[in-house]
Amino acid sequence: MTTLPQALTAPLAITLGDPCGIGPEIVLKSLQCDPSWMNLVVCVGDLGVLERTAAALRWQKGFRAVNSVRAALDLRREQPHVLPVVQVGDCLPNMPLGQVDARAGAAAQRWVEWAANAALRGEVAGLVTAPLHKAALAAAGCPYPGHTELLQANAAAFLELDPSQLPVRMMLANNELRTVLTSIHVSLRQAIDAITVDSVLETLRITHAHGLRCHPGERWRIAVAGLNPHAGEGGLFGQEETLAIAPAIEVALSEGMDVHGPISPDTVFMRARSVGARPGEFDVVVAMYHDQGLIPVKYLGVADGVNVTLGLPFIRTSPDHGTAFDIAGKYQADPSSFLTALKSAFALAVSSKPAPRPAVQHE
Amino acid sequence: MTTLPQALTAPLAITLGDPCGIGPEIVLKSLQCDPSWMNLVVCVGDLGVLERTAAALRWQKGFRAVNSVRAALDLRREQPHVLPVVQVGDCLPNMPLGQVDARAGAAAQRWVEWAANAALRGEVAGLVTAPLHKAALAAAGCPYPGHTELLQANAAAFLELDPSQLPVRMMLANNELRTVLTSIHVSLRQAIDAITVDSVLETLRITHAHGLRCHPGERWRIAVAGLNPHAGEGGLFGQEETLAIAPAIEVALSEGMDVHGPISPDTVFMRARSVGARPGEFDVVVAMYHDQGLIPVKYLGVADGVNVTLGLPFIRTSPDHGTAFDIAGKYQADPSSFLTALKSAFALAVSSKPAPRPAVQHE
Repeated sequence: MTTLPQALTAPLAITLGDPCGIGPEIVLKSLQCDPSWMNLVVCVGDLGVLERTAAALRWQKGFRAVNSVRAALDLRREQPHVLPVVQVGDCLPNMPLGQVDARAGAAAQRWVEWAANAALRGEVAGLVTAPLHKAALAAAGCPYPGHTELLQANAAAFLELDPSQLPVRMMLANNELRTVLTSIHVSLRQAIDAITVDSVLETLRITHAHGLRCHPGERWRIAVAGLNPHAGEGGLFGQEETLAIAPAIEVALSEGMDVHGPISPDTVFMRARSVGARPGEFDVVVAMYHDQGLIPVKYLGVADGVNVTLGLPFIRTSPDHGTAFDIAGKYQADPSSFLTALKSAFALAVSSKPAPRPAVQHE
Repeated sequence: MTTLPQALTAPLAITLGDPCGIGPEIVLKSLQCDPSWMNLVVCVGDLGVLERTAAALRWQKGFRAVNSVRAALDLRREQPHVLPVVQVGDCLPNMPLGQVDARAGAAAQRWVEWAANAALRGEVAGLVTAPLHKAALAAAGCPYPGHTELLQANAAAFLELDPSQLPVRMMLANNELRTVLTSIHVSLRQAIDAITVDSVLETLRITHAHGLRCHPGERWRIAVAGLNPHAGEGGLFGQEETLAIAPAIEVALSEGMDVHGPISPDTVFMRARSVGARPGEFDVVVAMYHDQGLIPVKYLGVADGVNVTLGLPFIRTSPDHGTAFDIAGKYQADPSSFLTALKSAFALAVSSKPAPRPAVQHE
């Protein structure tokens, strides 16, 4: 395919997310902002959804439904003013925006699964996913609360592994800070219970491996946040640092990783922050729970934030926000974070070494 | 006294903090940076400690020991090139810096107690405290881990109350963000256990009262952070929002406070942040635990951060850092945060209505 830069051997797949949210809008706005992305991506979704969104956005180009990545690339070469859409499943009816709809949830799930399989077959270099809606997924009978678990299950099935053999982690990143979360969508009590030597070590291994694969030549300096105030103040404010975090760091050090901590949570993000030309003390912070990492990453605004799933055998990025049902159909959504997710996926695809087939851990 | 601006009816007391840490250094550096503060403050501590620090800092003015605020003010008027020091207790020996010393802990405790009593008697308008060292306090047999608890106990005793009748909270603030912490120096598990309707409501009442007293004419817009990811996502990730936080907010609203929440912890600080001329959505965020509030307040750097104790019958501010034993005696400490604490205390003293004698709560 002539339109892809040589460094990119396959295009990126964009999934539209929940069609009743702002997903289709931010996808098209991103391509309007910078049409050169049209040569690097393949949209996976529904023709009607895109056409209805395009009408509201005064989109000047046409669409055509295709049924494969190959057909999409061929169409791009032959008709540069037409955006191919991989139509997965039957055409969707016109649904009210901003509402939970089981049909929307089911369609969004289908699109993600199709794109993941294309990535697993090597037809696309990675996925950039617009947001799903948890309740719509649940209404459709999807057993997964979001992309991360859905993609993990899909990739594990493709590789004939149990999902537990393909551990994944969420990384949030912006221009200043990267953070990898040890746990995500569980209560804070459950997040504390989930802090074990194994779970912290697994986070460190996944983080270190991502650094090696996606930033070749770098050996990430990994900071590990404590759980408790002042990282437990020597056991005075909690034992998790002593019993789980520090032992995991010791193993990681013995495996050759450049790991530091546990560091007081209230200063580790400040220390890791890169400001302009001044690099932070660390390349990434391993956080112990959802908000510990997300509060600092989002503090300066979500426009530049991007979500990267680590541990999958393909690249996957997404914007740092949800379906925003409250503004769906008002066409006020800001595509900045989606554009950042696109750029990040592109940079990762260009710089990454090929993903190894994950080694099954026998423990 | 002629040197105090009319708006300030009494000077501020500065306590030197642990004499083996960076406290005396940042106090003198602050007065070197801006000598006009010398007309607004009274130092409470030890003559020898200040003289030894002054020698290292090439301090040009003299010191003289006095035994009361009145004597300090008189000396300032008569000899403007001399800094009076209220000498509390015997002169301290020369102790090695950067080490835990029970004599240092005991002295630092004495100074804080003396200054608190001066504030309670109305001789000083408030306290600006350099950092204490927890281990040194403990070595001296002090039953309190830090300033907050020590000042609470002291004020309660003066007012003939039980400390539980004088609830206090820590507020951290910088130019962009204010946050009040529901709990501070306990493990994260204990912090979760401490989230009850009563404790959240108490935090809201203290925060609201501080806003009314110290910023007359304003009625603070108070945001309340949830505890769990996405503020519990409707009970899916934890029950604390439903069982404790939301009911406390309902009571606060019925009492006339302007309270919002519970709001997702990962976006509430971003929303409350004031940037330049753009004010944040809220005047203050009530955080559920130590790091939830401190991570965003410290993220952009600690130089501008200040710690304000709410609920005491006098003003008390302190810098946003500790004794820094690792650099004590190297004279590299940055006085910015202490200067900010001084300015904040001054602004609060000028703008505040007189503190009411706290109403004893009979519940």
